[in-house]
Amino acid sequence: MREHPRSKIKRVAQRGHYDQVTIHAILDEGWVAHVSFADGSGQPFVIPMAYVREDNAIYLHGSIASRLLNRLGEGIETCLCVTLIDGLVLARSHFHHSMNYRSVVAFGKAVAITDPGEKAAIFARFVEALIPGRSGESRAADRNEINATSLLRLNIEEASAKIRSGGPKDDPADKDLPFWCGVVPLRISIGEAIPADDVSPGRQLPDSVLRLQMR
Amino acid sequence: MREHPRSKIKRVAQRGHYDQVTIHAILDEGWVAHVSFADGSGQPFVIPMAYVREDNAIYLHGSIASRLLNRLGEGIETCLCVTLIDGLVLARSHFHHSMNYRSVVAFGKAVAITDPGEKAAIFARFVEALIPGRSGESRAADRNEINATSLLRLNIEEASAKIRSGGPKDDPADKDLPFWCGVVPLRISIGEAIPADDVSPGRQLPDSVLRLQMR
Repeated sequence: MREHPRSKIKRVAQRGHYDQVTIHAILDEGWVAHVSFADGSGQPFVIPMAYVREDNAIYLHGSIASRLLNRLGEGIETCLCVTLIDGLVLARSHFHHSMNYRSVVAFGKAVAITDPGEKAAIFARFVEALIPGRSGESRAADRNEINATSLLRLNIEEASAKIRSGGPKDDPADKDLPFWCGVVPLRISIGEAIPADDVSPGRQLPDSVLRLQMR
Repeated sequence: MREHPRSKIKRVAQRGHYDQVTIHAILDEGWVAHVSFADGSGQPFVIPMAYVREDNAIYLHGSIASRLLNRLGEGIETCLCVTLIDGLVLARSHFHHSMNYRSVVAFGKAVAITDPGEKAAIFARFVEALIPGRSGESRAADRNEINATSLLRLNIEEASAKIRSGGPKDDPADKDLPFWCGVVPLRISIGEAIPADDVSPGRQLPDSVLRLQMR
């Protein structure tokens, strides 16, 4: 992937990564992208959106009535960030407390996808990105739903990943302070599924949910 | 909190909330803010940052060498978003799949805090925001560390929260489809603490970590 001033990691440069394998793996693990853009006066906006990565592109979707989607679909400069939090880093000093994380910042411009078949296929991918296997356990989008939903593809023009992992980096002078230090890992865990009120009581949990719970 | 075109929720307006209690509760539960701004040409940027809320302000910090912090500290228009993901919403149709979440979008302009005592107190709050009780289990910032770290306060000028909760909203026509539907809750769980390599083997886990693990 091309490096560029927009995406070049400056602070703690050894945490920066620019290869697609690293970048795509982080994008594929996240559930929400924080998507930012500016209006004509330089006022920035950032909002959380579900997304799907396919090849070197990010898909975003929403109501055709969404002014935000329409604005992004005009092809304005867009920046998005996906962040995975992996742990809390406890050091012997306040200063060296930190978090372990993996994040991607990507730049590009969106184009609207209008072909109904392509839209339906990508909408199924949105379901799969949240819950693998689920698209076959629910009804695909019909023509009305396809028409009611905008789909944007943002080709990634530049991107960088930033990763912190491992333990605290204490100052040598602090080594003998009487404090525990180390890492407290964090991860997203799956709770017990809650059926909707109108699900018949005998209906079993679907395979997709059972697989999620076994992760 | 004042409503304004920047922060007014337009899509699914009943999910919008503008009261400080709701907004502050979401900000206090998050660990990372996605902070966005634009350069002079309208190019947007968004990056993940640790933060602390205090009253109706958000504090951000980083190296004094950070060009980003320096740029934000010039008082340019800034927008940030904190998102908590609460669950996956599985519907009978692809179209009604969704996520349960709580998010805040806040707007303001940052000012640099330069008083060393105020900086040290807020740096301790950063530690507390990650791990309650931890600031007393580690060394406070010394003069060099205080001088090496920029601290910005962003007074929240406008903000809105958006919350989705509860089960899927299926179309009545889909009620008899033979699919399970409901919610799969998600939460961040705390893993087993990993001591740093140079922690003496006999040193017990600190109270702060024990409390985190009992959450």
